[in-house]
Amino acid sequence: MTKWYIDKGPESDVVLSCRVRLARNFTEYPYPHRSTPEVRRRVMDRTVEAILHGSGVMSQEFRFIDFTKLPAVERQVLVEKHLVSKELADSRIECGAVISASENISIMLNEEDHLRIQVLGAGLQLDELWTLADKLDNQLADTIDFAYDAKFGYLTCCPTNIGTAVRASAMLHLPALVMTGYIKGILESVTKLGVAVRGMFGENTDATGNIFQISNQVTLGRSENDIITGVRSLANQIVEQERGLRQELIKQNGIRLEDRISRAYGVLRTARIISAEETLQKLSDVRLGVNLGLLPGLDETKLNTLMLDIQPGNIQQKAGRALRPDDRDTTRADLVRESMKVPGL
Amino acid sequence: MTKWYIDKGPESDVVLSCRVRLARNFTEYPYPHRSTPEVRRRVMDRTVEAILHGSGVMSQEFRFIDFTKLPAVERQVLVEKHLVSKELADSRIECGAVISASENISIMLNEEDHLRIQVLGAGLQLDELWTLADKLDNQLADTIDFAYDAKFGYLTCCPTNIGTAVRASAMLHLPALVMTGYIKGILESVTKLGVAVRGMFGENTDATGNIFQISNQVTLGRSENDIITGVRSLANQIVEQERGLRQELIKQNGIRLEDRISRAYGVLRTARIISAEETLQKLSDVRLGVNLGLLPGLDETKLNTLMLDIQPGNIQQKAGRALRPDDRDTTRADLVRESMKVPGL
Repeated sequence: MTKWYIDKGPESDVVLSCRVRLARNFTEYPYPHRSTPEVRRRVMDRTVEAILHGSGVMSQEFRFIDFTKLPAVERQVLVEKHLVSKELADSRIECGAVISASENISIMLNEEDHLRIQVLGAGLQLDELWTLADKLDNQLADTIDFAYDAKFGYLTCCPTNIGTAVRASAMLHLPALVMTGYIKGILESVTKLGVAVRGMFGENTDATGNIFQISNQVTLGRSENDIITGVRSLANQIVEQERGLRQELIKQNGIRLEDRISRAYGVLRTARIISAEETLQKLSDVRLGVNLGLLPGLDETKLNTLMLDIQPGNIQQKAGRALRPDDRDTTRADLVRESMKVPGL
Repeated sequence: MTKWYIDKGPESDVVLSCRVRLARNFTEYPYPHRSTPEVRRRVMDRTVEAILHGSGVMSQEFRFIDFTKLPAVERQVLVEKHLVSKELADSRIECGAVISASENISIMLNEEDHLRIQVLGAGLQLDELWTLADKLDNQLADTIDFAYDAKFGYLTCCPTNIGTAVRASAMLHLPALVMTGYIKGILESVTKLGVAVRGMFGENTDATGNIFQISNQVTLGRSENDIITGVRSLANQIVEQERGLRQELIKQNGIRLEDRISRAYGVLRTARIISAEETLQKLSDVRLGVNLGLLPGLDETKLNTLMLDIQPGNIQQKAGRALRPDDRDTTRADLVRESMKVPGL
């Protein structure tokens, strides 16, 4: 089954992907970190049961991954695919994830909350993702009694998540906003609107490769639809600004932009040792080049694949063994050089 | 006739070229800047006569170039070929040069001295150049009475040149000495030996592209042979040190060196706008790669040609018109990309 993250979705010239996440907890059990190993096992068993043997509203297969038995590299691969959080990967308690075949659905088990239902998709399609998440939530609610308060809504471990317990986010590629410096103003005004901006791997990560994740801060006192619509329309506004600036850059100093893009391609095509960070930075320029039609022969799906393949966990999974950082950087360079070999470029 | 500067000479993995220069003045005329236009004309006419219609010890044709009629771009081209000094190109008095067909001989007329006899060659071949310069000097002395003092030797405009009035120099490519930082020690000890170190275009120019020119400071109280031998053996010592360090770099961190070389090639292969300085820096790495056998398909003669072709004067001469700096940088990038296109790289 094709993985969702290779796809090209709506507005994919700017929006790489989006996600809707629901936090849910069993009424009858304490939150994971206050619980016992036995209860945490029961949380996992019951969720797996509800998904794998439930009413089956989803049209694809699921697999359960028990993190207590999972090697570190495999955990890291799941983080790099955005299927689980770094916190879950680093967790030492009984935890895991239920993941769909096309990897567009991942339910984290015993992270901060008992369940973190995540639905992911390429490009900007938050409404579709919300519909899917809602359906999944309903299926689970058939057999699980979720902690819910008539006044506060869904109850969660951290008070910032109570209410709808919905977080909608979009991963935006904003090279023109960064190059022109306008990103600073955008970030300031977005924050005032109650929207958080983060790097590619969530909280406390930076915007390597000019990739920014926006998501709603507030989950209480607004309906799910309001939240989804809010993030979607904000993403759309940023998309328009980014597109406008790209055209402006081409018009005002096209040759410098072409030079930057072409050189970035040159680095990827010739480096013998390269870090994940530098690769992402150069891929950012190359992606912009593809979007502007300056690098025919390359397309977004190739870049999407590569963006994942070059991550440390994926590199090591492919190599079949743990690699020291230097060896990762040479293995990555070999991979990148090879996959950037495009006839005519 | 093939130009000497395209050739690959002895020790060309480190020594790009060398030069022997003699300063000579007519006994009966004041130095150029203290002279009259008529006398300066006479100096030029008599030298041209002595060369073009003299005993003809040289086996090639010569042409006289009158600088008073020469466009600025053409003067610059001659500077870039190291055939005349920047001072001569900028001069506003009657001056010029007599240049041989293969451009290995250039006699500057009315620069600081009446005559500056220069003989140039690829690689390290100072003895051969000295023999040629001496022959040429003798031919000129058949008809010109050079200012000579029994005690001081040849008299020159600037007192630092009197005596033999010989300056021998070698242009060295020293990337490994620069990368390892050992160049600093070399420069210090060389200076103590009475040898001057300069950049590619002589006094007050820096060592762009890791190219250093060494030459004797003292011309008085030593024989011509001593001077030539001194510069030659010093050059040989530096050549050995550079070669040793190159092997050391490969042994200690080959992949980093390969990365640097490969990326430099990548920049030249993909840039859309590039300065002469950056081109020389990248060409330095590429030349090292060629010398180490890391870039099969490229050879030194190609790099020698390019090193000249990318200079501002040559770029404009080829374009057939004056170009603004930005246009030079895009024209240069087009030229470099095209000539770096090597099958298999």
